[in-house]
Amino acid sequence: MKVSVFRKSHFNAAHRLNVPEWSEAKNQEVFGKCNKPNYHGHNYVMEVKLTGEIDPITGYLIDLGILKQIINEEVVDRYDHRNLNLDVPEFKNVNPTVENIAVEIFNRLRARINEHLTLGLRLYETERNFVEIEQ
Amino acid sequence: MKVSVFRKSHFNAAHRLNVPEWSEAKNQEVFGKCNKPNYHGHNYVMEVKLTGEIDPITGYLIDLGILKQIINEEVVDRYDHRNLNLDVPEFKNVNPTVENIAVEIFNRLRARINEHLTLGLRLYETERNFVEIEQ
Amino acid sequence: MKVSVFRKSHFNAAHRLNVPEWSEAKNQEVFGKCNKPNYHGHNYVMEVKLTGEIDPITGYLIDLGILKQIINEEVVDRYDHRNLNLDVPEFKNVNPTVENIAVEIFNRLRARINEHLTLGLRLYETERNFVEIEQ
Amino acid sequence: MKVSVFRKSHFNAAHRLNVPEWSEAKNQEVFGKCNKPNYHGHNYVMEVKLTGEIDPITGYLIDLGILKQIINEEVVDRYDHRNLNLDVPEFKNVNPTVENIAVEIFNRLRARINEHLTLGLRLYETERNFVEIEQ
Amino acid sequence: MKVSVFRKSHFNAAHRLNVPEWSEAKNQEVFGKCNKPNYHGHNYVMEVKLTGEIDPITGYLIDLGILKQIINEEVVDRYDHRNLNLDVPEFKNVNPTVENIAVEIFNRLRARINEHLTLGLRLYETERNFVEIEQ
Amino acid sequence: MKVSVFRKSHFNAAHRLNVPEWSEAKNQEVFGKCNKPNYHGHNYVMEVKLTGEIDPITGYLIDLGILKQIINEEVVDRYDHRNLNLDVPEFKNVNPTVENIAVEIFNRLRARINEHLTLGLRLYETERNFVEIEQ
Repeated sequence: MKVSVFRKSHFNAAHRLNVPEWSEAKNQEVFGKCNKPNYHGHNYVMEVKLTGEIDPITGYLIDLGILKQIINEEVVDRYDHRNLNLDVPEFKNVNPTVENIAVEIFNRLRARINEHLTLGLRLYETERNFVEIEQ
Repeated sequence: MKVSVFRKSHFNAAHRLNVPEWSEAKNQEVFGKCNKPNYHGHNYVMEVKLTGEIDPITGYLIDLGILKQIINEEVVDRYDHRNLNLDVPEFKNVNPTVENIAVEIFNRLRARINEHLTLGLRLYETERNFVEIEQ
Repeated sequence: MKVSVFRKSHFNAAHRLNVPEWSEAKNQEVFGKCNKPNYHGHNYVMEVKLTGEIDPITGYLIDLGILKQIINEEVVDRYDHRNLNLDVPEFKNVNPTVENIAVEIFNRLRARINEHLTLGLRLYETERNFVEIEQ
Repeated sequence: MKVSVFRKSHFNAAHRLNVPEWSEAKNQEVFGKCNKPNYHGHNYVMEVKLTGEIDPITGYLIDLGILKQIINEEVVDRYDHRNLNLDVPEFKNVNPTVENIAVEIFNRLRARINEHLTLGLRLYETERNFVEIEQ
Repeated sequence: MKVSVFRKSHFNAAHRLNVPEWSEAKNQEVFGKCNKPNYHGHNYVMEVKLTGEIDPITGYLIDLGILKQIINEEVVDRYDHRNLNLDVPEFKNVNPTVENIAVEIFNRLRARINEHLTLGLRLYETERNFVEIEQ
Repeated sequence: MKVSVFRKSHFNAAHRLNVPEWSEAKNQEVFGKCNKPNYHGHNYVMEVKLTGEIDPITGYLIDLGILKQIINEEVVDRYDHRNLNLDVPEFKNVNPTVENIAVEIFNRLRARINEHLTLGLRLYETERNFVEIEQ
């Protein structure tokens, strides 16, 4: 029987949506207040989902201590209390929409999580707007 | 990589569960207090889910301004602060259970959302009772 | 040392805001969509707060079983799955705004709760709009 | 059209993680504070999900009264205000991790739910750690 | 009978904690990661509380439409999707801690709200850290 | 201007309500399922509230790092993943009702917090049952 385990984490970051190839007018038209030049920010909430088989001895799918360490190293330590546009290399040339942030997090975690486990990710930018990747 | 984007909305409505072909006694037996004649109501919470590819330039799956307008036109403007049984045509002959309300919303949104995007819907009648359509 | 104990309850009801002495136009102007004739509804959430001394033997401020019974008799059994305007006598001549509903509940509970306990009440009409009575 | 209906329930229980075949030192190393000998506890929150076709007359997927009774008989009456390790037979020889608790609940519900309905389960041990079974 | 009415609002902003008179080292020691130079951000949640008498005709303490407009003009339109340090005049010389943000909001609202109404304010920086002003 | 700062924390513990001087029958009658002999448990959520003046230089009421350390030392390190009846000295002779737990926490924190600050405490045993001490 396949079981999924979820671990919820948080990071608070500043960002701004902007496509450098576009004019200021076009950026404002497409991204509205999210384009304001001096950044705004969010309390991002992230749910990491791992799916696989339960270890018959421990009853654990994974040692959550290990998962927590991976999430901290790959995401929290790098994004929390940062400016995503200015401080985080992967968003130098990638617009930090919640969709793109989720894809970057997913790829970084995927490279660290045992390949026998399926990875999913939900990322909340606000309580009302969030994204999900299921694979 | 497929990504899903969620948008949460609300509407507050009155309703009553009743099958006109049944006797009063049978309606009371099946629907209990939900059958009371003068209606009761709920704060409905709706999560619309769209799945597809991220636009490589904007980093958006969809312009949420457009999605919000569709949700308002098809659902909020028509259901909010209304009596579902009396004021909303689609429930003249359909019992407004949370299942049926979800199906009606799903069909109305499906007709408006680009066919390249997969549509999902979660509808909460209360914090404890909710339904989901995934396709 | 004074301690307060809170008990959270729910009721789902239909209502409509209307001042019968006013014209239809004035009612619509003041109450907007809350004035729509066929009612709408809410999941009301109620927090009852009692303040007093802890019983030195039981460690309870009050037997919550007794409090729950009082809340059910005075509020839940009378308001839940009802139309406040049509089904509940106290709103025949009182406009069922969340303020007025809270006052009615407060008075009904006050008459039943031991006078040595201070009573408070918070009533949520939605997550965003709520009222409180502290005495 | 397939629709899923969710019902949320609660139980409050004590437990302790321990593999009897292991030394005390190994148990402490693997399970940390969850291994403490005198038990700790949680407010478990459970979401049962049933997927199937809506009854064309009632508009219900299932009579929630029946579902509630099954959940109470199989889970709440047996787990609530209990010590999972000491009081619940299925955890005499199974470590009550949230993964294993979910599997036991899933199997007990599966045996009682009509086979035409697909069963899913989400179980929260805390707001931050939870598991899901989808079939 | 005094009643309080609450209205919940949101704004998403970037900020950074820094005392310009202090050395970089001292700022880092006192404010830690909140001092990082390129800003971070939060989803601020604000609950405005007004206490007074209910209007005996309308049953309202205040027309929430008017309150909402004041909150938007004084807070949301000025803080939302802004950098508090760079874009908001009142934080040019005031460190935008959640305490100071609450005081500024309180004072701005106090100047606009009828003096017969008592004003209170709760401001959440995160779910775990928040402040309150009661007067 | 007086401002209050809140800090939210958690601990997960087992407990049982019982008055040793009473018969088993009387304990069961008064405490019901909370009296079950093998303990049950809860995810306790605690909000510590400090009221005072804002430091005019830092803009802080208190360094939350210091508050967090006090809460951890006095409460979390001593109660989390413990059996309150068996492992925590202050409940050897005090029935661990949520009222009594709150009083013990309040007194322990009061002894550590600067006397210029007013202390308040809210303790949730479940989402529906909670207590508050305000002084």
